[in-house]
Amino acid sequence: MIKITLPDGSIKEYEKGATPMDVATSISEGLARNVISAKFNDTIVETTTPLNEDGSIILYTWNDKEGKKAFWHSSSHVVAQALEELYPGVKLTIGPAIDNGFYYDVDLGERSISDKDFPEIEKKALEIARGKHDFKMRAISKQDALSIYKEQKNEYKVELIENLEDGTITFCDHDIFTDLCRGGHIPNTGIIKAIKILSVAGAYWRGDENKPQLTRVYGISFPKQKDLTEYLELLEQARQRDHRKLGKELELFTFSAKVGQGLPLWLPKGAALRERLENFLKKAQKKAGYEMVVTPHIGQKELYVTSGHYAKYGEDSFQPIKTPKMDEEFLLKPMNCPHHCEVYNFKPHSYKDLPKRFAEFGTVYRYEQSGELHGLTRVRGFTQDDAHIFCTADQLDQEFKNVIDLSLYVLGSLGFENFTAQVSVRDLDKPEKYIGSVENWEKAENAIINAAKEKGLNFVIESGEAAFYGPKLDFMVKDALGRQWQLGTIQVDYNLPERFDLTYKGSDNELHRPVMIHRAPFGSMERFIALLLEHTGGNFPLWLIPEQAIILPVSEKHEKYAEKVLNSLEKHEIRALVDKRNETVGKKIREAEMNKIPFMLIVGENEEAEDTISVRRHGGEDLGSITINDFNELVSKEINSTLKSF
Amino acid sequence: MIKITLPDGSIKEYEKGATPMDVATSISEGLARNVISAKFNDTIVETTTPLNEDGSIILYTWNDKEGKKAFWHSSSHVVAQALEELYPGVKLTIGPAIDNGFYYDVDLGERSISDKDFPEIEKKALEIARGKHDFKMRAISKQDALSIYKEQKNEYKVELIENLEDGTITFCDHDIFTDLCRGGHIPNTGIIKAIKILSVAGAYWRGDENKPQLTRVYGISFPKQKDLTEYLELLEQARQRDHRKLGKELELFTFSAKVGQGLPLWLPKGAALRERLENFLKKAQKKAGYEMVVTPHIGQKELYVTSGHYAKYGEDSFQPIKTPKMDEEFLLKPMNCPHHCEVYNFKPHSYKDLPKRFAEFGTVYRYEQSGELHGLTRVRGFTQDDAHIFCTADQLDQEFKNVIDLSLYVLGSLGFENFTAQVSVRDLDKPEKYIGSVENWEKAENAIINAAKEKGLNFVIESGEAAFYGPKLDFMVKDALGRQWQLGTIQVDYNLPERFDLTYKGSDNELHRPVMIHRAPFGSMERFIALLLEHTGGNFPLWLIPEQAIILPVSEKHEKYAEKVLNSLEKHEIRALVDKRNETVGKKIREAEMNKIPFMLIVGENEEAEDTISVRRHGGEDLGSITINDFNELVSKEINSTLKSF
Repeated sequence: MIKITLPDGSIKEYEKGATPMDVATSISEGLARNVISAKFNDTIVETTTPLNEDGSIILYTWNDKEGKKAFWHSSSHVVAQALEELYPGVKLTIGPAIDNGFYYDVDLGERSISDKDFPEIEKKALEIARGKHDFKMRAISKQDALSIYKEQKNEYKVELIENLEDGTITFCDHDIFTDLCRGGHIPNTGIIKAIKILSVAGAYWRGDENKPQLTRVYGISFPKQKDLTEYLELLEQARQRDHRKLGKELELFTFSAKVGQGLPLWLPKGAALRERLENFLKKAQKKAGYEMVVTPHIGQKELYVTSGHYAKYGEDSFQPIKTPKMDEEFLLKPMNCPHHCEVYNFKPHSYKDLPKRFAEFGTVYRYEQSGELHGLTRVRGFTQDDAHIFCTADQLDQEFKNVIDLSLYVLGSLGFENFTAQVSVRDLDKPEKYIGSVENWEKAENAIINAAKEKGLNFVIESGEAAFYGPKLDFMVKDALGRQWQLGTIQVDYNLPERFDLTYKGSDNELHRPVMIHRAPFGSMERFIALLLEHTGGNFPLWLIPEQAIILPVSEKHEKYAEKVLNSLEKHEIRALVDKRNETVGKKIREAEMNKIPFMLIVGENEEAEDTISVRRHGGEDLGSITINDFNELVSKEINSTLKSF
Repeated sequence: MIKITLPDGSIKEYEKGATPMDVATSISEGLARNVISAKFNDTIVETTTPLNEDGSIILYTWNDKEGKKAFWHSSSHVVAQALEELYPGVKLTIGPAIDNGFYYDVDLGERSISDKDFPEIEKKALEIARGKHDFKMRAISKQDALSIYKEQKNEYKVELIENLEDGTITFCDHDIFTDLCRGGHIPNTGIIKAIKILSVAGAYWRGDENKPQLTRVYGISFPKQKDLTEYLELLEQARQRDHRKLGKELELFTFSAKVGQGLPLWLPKGAALRERLENFLKKAQKKAGYEMVVTPHIGQKELYVTSGHYAKYGEDSFQPIKTPKMDEEFLLKPMNCPHHCEVYNFKPHSYKDLPKRFAEFGTVYRYEQSGELHGLTRVRGFTQDDAHIFCTADQLDQEFKNVIDLSLYVLGSLGFENFTAQVSVRDLDKPEKYIGSVENWEKAENAIINAAKEKGLNFVIESGEAAFYGPKLDFMVKDALGRQWQLGTIQVDYNLPERFDLTYKGSDNELHRPVMIHRAPFGSMERFIALLLEHTGGNFPLWLIPEQAIILPVSEKHEKYAEKVLNSLEKHEIRALVDKRNETVGKKIREAEMNKIPFMLIVGENEEAEDTISVRRHGGEDLGSITINDFNELVSKEINSTLKSF
């Protein structure tokens, strides 16, 4: 008999040689139906692997990340078989699971695959899957494995096997198909109910551009047809909401090859939107007692050696800026904190001055490899909605709560309801990893946890995830498509006050070190606007959107009245424009829909006679003919319902 | 007889050997009384120099720059004589006139001069001046000159003479004093009525730190005692208004040795003031049809090679920023224009879109030698209130007028009434110096001159002062101390549209080049705020000043009422604070005066009982006891009288 520990800590006894599937069956029939993969003593195993010793087991279903991984890896075997049958002589190489699905890299020789071939591959793969073939692992000697692939003239598998040790090599069989494989499959192919080939791309063998180019076939599979349908819908929605696509269509920002990759140029509508976001936060920050400062975008290299940023960013980032006589060196600032420490150091402080809260929309520059750049979410220059709070240890608790309040206000005003928080604290077993006194760490961690509780945050505590210089709290939001984004952070720092020798005179007349809090509710303007674009699909909250209304005169005759309406709206501070083009109202409405304008105000004979506007909402709702005052009230009401005052 | 041409073009005949003084006398007795220096055939001469050939003459009085130069140079002789008499054995070196006064570099051996010695030197020099000694030039052979100074053991004069050619050497005598001198004196010492020694400083012989250190004695002199009194008052006022001093006292900005020289850090009050200025301009610009954009602070080196800025700033400015693999090069932007050209190039334009007006408060970086840095007026990083207008050649006229309107509005709202303009146009004799068609240049120059005339500017036209790429208009303002500052510029540019291949589709369906206008009414935020500080002495216009009012409770008992007053003021958007310190009202008033706070609101028994405030203006005026509403009206009225809407 062997002793198996289950995830809930309970221990059960089984016959030696029992399989994970046996364990599942012993727990419940439902689990046995759903289990598709397992981990035994920290190693992924098949559900059919005999267990011959005591140990811990985890059983995975489709709902687990590891379950999906086994599902998609197994599906890649099925697709590989389909490719072999459809393209005789194809050479298989590797076929792993990835975050969303799987791929298989194949050498097709002279042939090629296009999207026209996808349905045939899907059909063939699904036929194979329906055969409910078990996945069966078997060991094989290196010599036998090599001779099989040498016979097939598959130099890729030969190369892979040559790098493996004899005695560790396994093959996986299902149906008439066999592949070199280290394991991790679902019980049988019948569980795979839906398969989609997503794309093909070129990929060098082993990622080396000096080696042959292979064809990478991307696919995804699901245990239900419905899951695939939903996934494809989500994919299409994400494509429609891609902030790079929307940013261009809505003329918010652009990139210029001449200016350089990863350096966004904000076009008028984007710059205005960004300014509205900044003003919104500035207003709330002013009420919360922050003071704005302005600091340069460069500093002497020594400044960042002092702060420790040079050690962190120096060699991998933009290199130092020399001067004509080469006697000075500056760096583009990767962070604003050193500058704010120097602002703090402008004059001596007393405990009566604290807390000091210095805020700046500070643009920082960090080098990223060109391959890693992505729209506004991965750039080389971005503007942080940065602030640094300098306070006493005793003030930390209140300051942290205030920052959470501000962050919640920001998220709420922008329509994010679905968010969680992570509190990162010390690893208590490794006190040597952290700077600052134990007493201060305890104070800070308690302050954060209490604040998170008191503010009703949905949060987890992660031990050992704190930076060496202090504990922190990160906000994560889920967007409208259910995707997770890491947003702003609130970070306690005991390090920089030391490095910059920051002090204040306490009521005891002695000098003390202030504590520093870094915080940025948006994170960065670039990333936040990208998130907002993908979350709203460009249908920004009314207070934020570039144009709130477009006036559509039904003919040239009504242009003058349209101008009059525009003037009235401007007096009410409603952002509007008139579409005077010689086009049909139908076409103008279609384009206004494309441009995500919330209100279309149609003006013709009747409206002019009655001094009204016919209001159509984005999406199609007809609000009928109303006066401008009524419209203004409608707009104000909607804005006030989202944009509460802080 | 010789023919002498006077500055008005008239020609008069004189006996050969007549002196400039004779010419002056022949014109008028008044002129003869006032003439103190002269230029003959483009060479400075004495008023006693015999004229032996035909030529042009200019006669200078104290009111001319050249007159002052002769006056101060002559005064340095007198001070040198005084030093010789007071410090026997002193070795004289050189003693030129400078912008404001003169200096003499002397070797005092073991002795030294301090400010305690100044009155004695002044007294002695004035005694000498009162002797009305004529300045008399005489030629001397190199050998004789050398032997005189060798005998005096003056190695400095010996070195100077050794570098001169025999036959060109002259001495100047007055009273019992003789000095090596090339000339340019006033008629006699008696004209010097006031002499002030301003300071002493160390100076290396010939500016070479490997050579002996001398003592530089700075002085200034005037033809009337009253002029000196006025000058010293101005000097004291300028010292009091030095923006570096005020900036520190009012906590507007600071510099940090760690961040780097010439890189200002804007403290909360300064950052807020700067933002008010920016918002003021933004609002006016919005009405004038500008659109804000945001662009990065770096760009690829190639961008600036394309624009021509690399050729202009490259080697003498901040050096290129390399990347970790050294495969890319970026530059800190020295100007915003290339970025704005790329914003324009975001999409194709039609003549219907023009003009496009892109504005940005763009921070640019240019390297300056550390010795040339000066407060906020000479920095290494500064923010331009930049905008670029892209228009058709036909729109230039109207756009130029609009920009002048905006500039006049800006100057007027900030209390500058005393300004002039300079229009810089082509040198018609050198057409090869300029790019762009003659037709376009004519259009542009006419547009500028017409606009300047129509807007009633006090302007001069300077031929040949235009840049190679277009004509321009510069504003010059006089501050409260009468000092000239160059402010914003309006500049036409035919060059960048070529270099960036900017186009628009005309009504003829063909592609055309737009014209570009660069403009910045403030010039830069840093320089403008420095100017405002020195112009107002920190007494900024009420709409702009950091704190508009300070509430002074006469005792702790009235603090609560003071807070109530503060709340009411905040509701009226009046920037105020309460001085709760345990100090006398007298002391609080004195400090509020120092801090340039326009209104002091004293609250005590009576005010609390009557729900009023006792208002004292900065400077001392007592406005009596009034209600908060009345005070609010007072403030609004004063603001509206300076800050008109655009």
